[in-house]
Amino acid sequence: MSGAALEAVPAEGRPVEGMPVDDRPVLDLDAYLRHLEDDRERMVATVEQRPLAALTGWHASRDRDRIAHHAGGFFTVEGITVTLPGRSDTAWDQPIVVQDEVGVLGIIAKRFGGTLHLLMQHKVEPGNRNGVQVSPTVQATRSNFMRVHGGAATPYLDHFRSPERAGRQRVLVDVRQSEQGSWFFRKRNRNVVVEVFDDVEVLPGWYWLTLRQVAELMRHDDLVNMEVRSVLACLPAHLHLEGYGVDAGLDPTRTAPGTVELLSWISRVRSDHTQQVERCSLQALEDWTFDEDALRHRSGRYFTVIGVDVTSRSREVRRWDQPMVAAGANGVVALVVDWIDGEPHLLLQLRAEPGSMDGPELAPTVQCDPANYDADALPPYLAEVLAAPADRVLFDTMLSDEGGRFFHTSHRHLVVRGAAHEPPPGYRWLSLAQCSELARHSHYLNVQTRSLLACAVTVLGSMPAEGER
Amino acid sequence: MSGAALEAVPAEGRPVEGMPVDDRPVLDLDAYLRHLEDDRERMVATVEQRPLAALTGWHASRDRDRIAHHAGGFFTVEGITVTLPGRSDTAWDQPIVVQDEVGVLGIIAKRFGGTLHLLMQHKVEPGNRNGVQVSPTVQATRSNFMRVHGGAATPYLDHFRSPERAGRQRVLVDVRQSEQGSWFFRKRNRNVVVEVFDDVEVLPGWYWLTLRQVAELMRHDDLVNMEVRSVLACLPAHLHLEGYGVDAGLDPTRTAPGTVELLSWISRVRSDHTQQVERCSLQALEDWTFDEDALRHRSGRYFTVIGVDVTSRSREVRRWDQPMVAAGANGVVALVVDWIDGEPHLLLQLRAEPGSMDGPELAPTVQCDPANYDADALPPYLAEVLAAPADRVLFDTMLSDEGGRFFHTSHRHLVVRGAAHEPPPGYRWLSLAQCSELARHSHYLNVQTRSLLACAVTVLGSMPAEGER
Repeated sequence: MSGAALEAVPAEGRPVEGMPVDDRPVLDLDAYLRHLEDDRERMVATVEQRPLAALTGWHASRDRDRIAHHAGGFFTVEGITVTLPGRSDTAWDQPIVVQDEVGVLGIIAKRFGGTLHLLMQHKVEPGNRNGVQVSPTVQATRSNFMRVHGGAATPYLDHFRSPERAGRQRVLVDVRQSEQGSWFFRKRNRNVVVEVFDDVEVLPGWYWLTLRQVAELMRHDDLVNMEVRSVLACLPAHLHLEGYGVDAGLDPTRTAPGTVELLSWISRVRSDHTQQVERCSLQALEDWTFDEDALRHRSGRYFTVIGVDVTSRSREVRRWDQPMVAAGANGVVALVVDWIDGEPHLLLQLRAEPGSMDGPELAPTVQCDPANYDADALPPYLAEVLAAPADRVLFDTMLSDEGGRFFHTSHRHLVVRGAAHEPPPGYRWLSLAQCSELARHSHYLNVQTRSLLACAVTVLGSMPAEGER
Repeated sequence: MSGAALEAVPAEGRPVEGMPVDDRPVLDLDAYLRHLEDDRERMVATVEQRPLAALTGWHASRDRDRIAHHAGGFFTVEGITVTLPGRSDTAWDQPIVVQDEVGVLGIIAKRFGGTLHLLMQHKVEPGNRNGVQVSPTVQATRSNFMRVHGGAATPYLDHFRSPERAGRQRVLVDVRQSEQGSWFFRKRNRNVVVEVFDDVEVLPGWYWLTLRQVAELMRHDDLVNMEVRSVLACLPAHLHLEGYGVDAGLDPTRTAPGTVELLSWISRVRSDHTQQVERCSLQALEDWTFDEDALRHRSGRYFTVIGVDVTSRSREVRRWDQPMVAAGANGVVALVVDWIDGEPHLLLQLRAEPGSMDGPELAPTVQCDPANYDADALPPYLAEVLAAPADRVLFDTMLSDEGGRFFHTSHRHLVVRGAAHEPPPGYRWLSLAQCSELARHSHYLNVQTRSLLACAVTVLGSMPAEGER
């Protein structure tokens, strides 16, 4: 095998047999984290905030109908108005990021000694407060990998673009999934994991990690990026739980019980959903101020569109500027979980977001920025998850939103052991098996649910005793 | 049990046991067809073609940007332009029907003597060339059943709108599905079948038929309407094949083998699909003429938007006029099928249509109106299915498009036994089990595929010997 690779951690107790032997020493997580620090020093980006009007590559002055790149492409920031059922006036308006093309979020997997490893990339994005984060093997917009704007070829892209590789690899999951429906207009990316049978050259900045190591890294603040979490949530749950010795009813050849009723609920709610979203000029937004500096809500809430100037030593284009969405780090996403009939269940809600392609998607129990609400009108379950005693909190980490579009934006990710109860209207308990089945298809689990699911699946896997209650 | 009901046909050999006894005589198909003739005489609609400019209820004169009802609602006819990848000029433009709301196509099912029966409605639509067709228990737009325009309550609607009926009924399938993507802009309807455990009052014009009887009726030209075919295609295939004594690998608790690769193909093709569709004024259409009489393509091909005046004796509103799409009866939709490893397979293609919500959907092997093509550029497989010897033709019937929007528009439906072969790019063999699994989710099988699938599933079911080849 050519190139560098990290081996399975000894804790997993699965020696490498009958597979090509790696030419690097076996590294544990501590050693990996030293590599991460090295790459953080090596792959530096300087990011400075700029007034929108000062962006040199973009039409972003306050007299514009939309913010757009001089050469076209990349993305635009446009306006939308939202009208609720039974009302003729606009409920609210807002700017939103429009990016029509479908990018690739691809992870190469390979079994060494029977254990599934993932080829992860160290990638700097301008919105990351800490430079490098752990990214998928390939994370590229379509314009990017089609080299519309020039630039280098995208490493490893062929694994996700060339179906003729059949026989030398197999697909574990491949599904277009939505991104943040409050900030993106109908954005989708292809979330794909392929298991390769060949050797794979490991380029500088890429590392083999086991699924369990990645799960460990998710407990580090702002380290495993949103794209990795999104993709891993789509990977069938039984693969996450290999070797944990739990039976969470995750036979991938069986359809999850109760799915017909679940799909019926989704179908009914979506059919009744008549929120109207219309695109409009930024000039037409009534609730927002668009000045030299930024595009802000009059209340100071929600998010701000700012400009940044980026100098990178590790990207194909060395210097550029761009608009970004800054939404801060006050946001909370939380899953209330419990075991029902021995199976782990997650309390989800059907939530309408204006940028959704196809109506409400399944959102976490809690998904909000508390600063956007008056203190006497906070969303359901928020107080409960924030006040949960330590022994009920199964996961609690700050994790970032995508650093290519969102500036220093993170959400506190909480998984809290609750008590199964009759859910309020709009909420429903889904088994882990049901979530895993829905994750194979587009537009069911929103990106916040997927992000939490990637955290929760290993949490549930590390608590085998809970399954037997 | 109150009301009238038809019983299982003796041919099915399943006497009614332990269920409420019906107060009508048991009827076979011939007796049912006499009821149909009676209803055809009773439920008369007079439909006359009118110039668009003469419509009294609609803004449809040739100076309009779009054709719309005076009071709003119902639907509009608008323009779209379609741009293909890598080209900046418009590939084509066309009018399209816009109807944002999601209607209900609902069928009530009930087991009598162990045999599943469906409560079918005799319904007249203005576009039906023969008046009454066999329709779902409920077939209603949202405006219709919400009584936006006044009118009577929709019978049986509660079965599909009231989840609190749980315990007295169960859902067999419930999924929003697309309609014709060449003629409708992002139209979806909820396709739903509920099995009831209570007695159901049978109103005049509704009849209990077995699934097998409905399958028989599908062999009558223009009798079983498009909505019934669409809904029944979504009903799990094993229910269609109950009692036929075939094992087509249709265990509904198992996921169909090969689905991961199938979904990957769909995901990849959809991610690469960059056709752009923009709405525009009817005045901006370059390829169409919009005059007093109608809206037509300059070539005479494709379809025409016409006006009709309707007088009905069986609808809640007794007289109205409306625009309709007239696309003739030259269209052909065909499935090439074969048995692979003992399982029935269908040859489908991923086909982009401008009105699709979410990119290409799975279309039949052949879906075209040959009159829209030059003789030397006909679509693949068309010549083959039209020339198939009689012993390879498993199904051949003219079946109508939806009579509420389409005037005298039918497609010849063909199911042809082919020979399994390596499919050309864009085509793929799907097992019946895979089709049935995909039919539970939105936007996989287009309406032409569903229409043919409803015909094919019983064809395959009536050929048990084929499964053993």
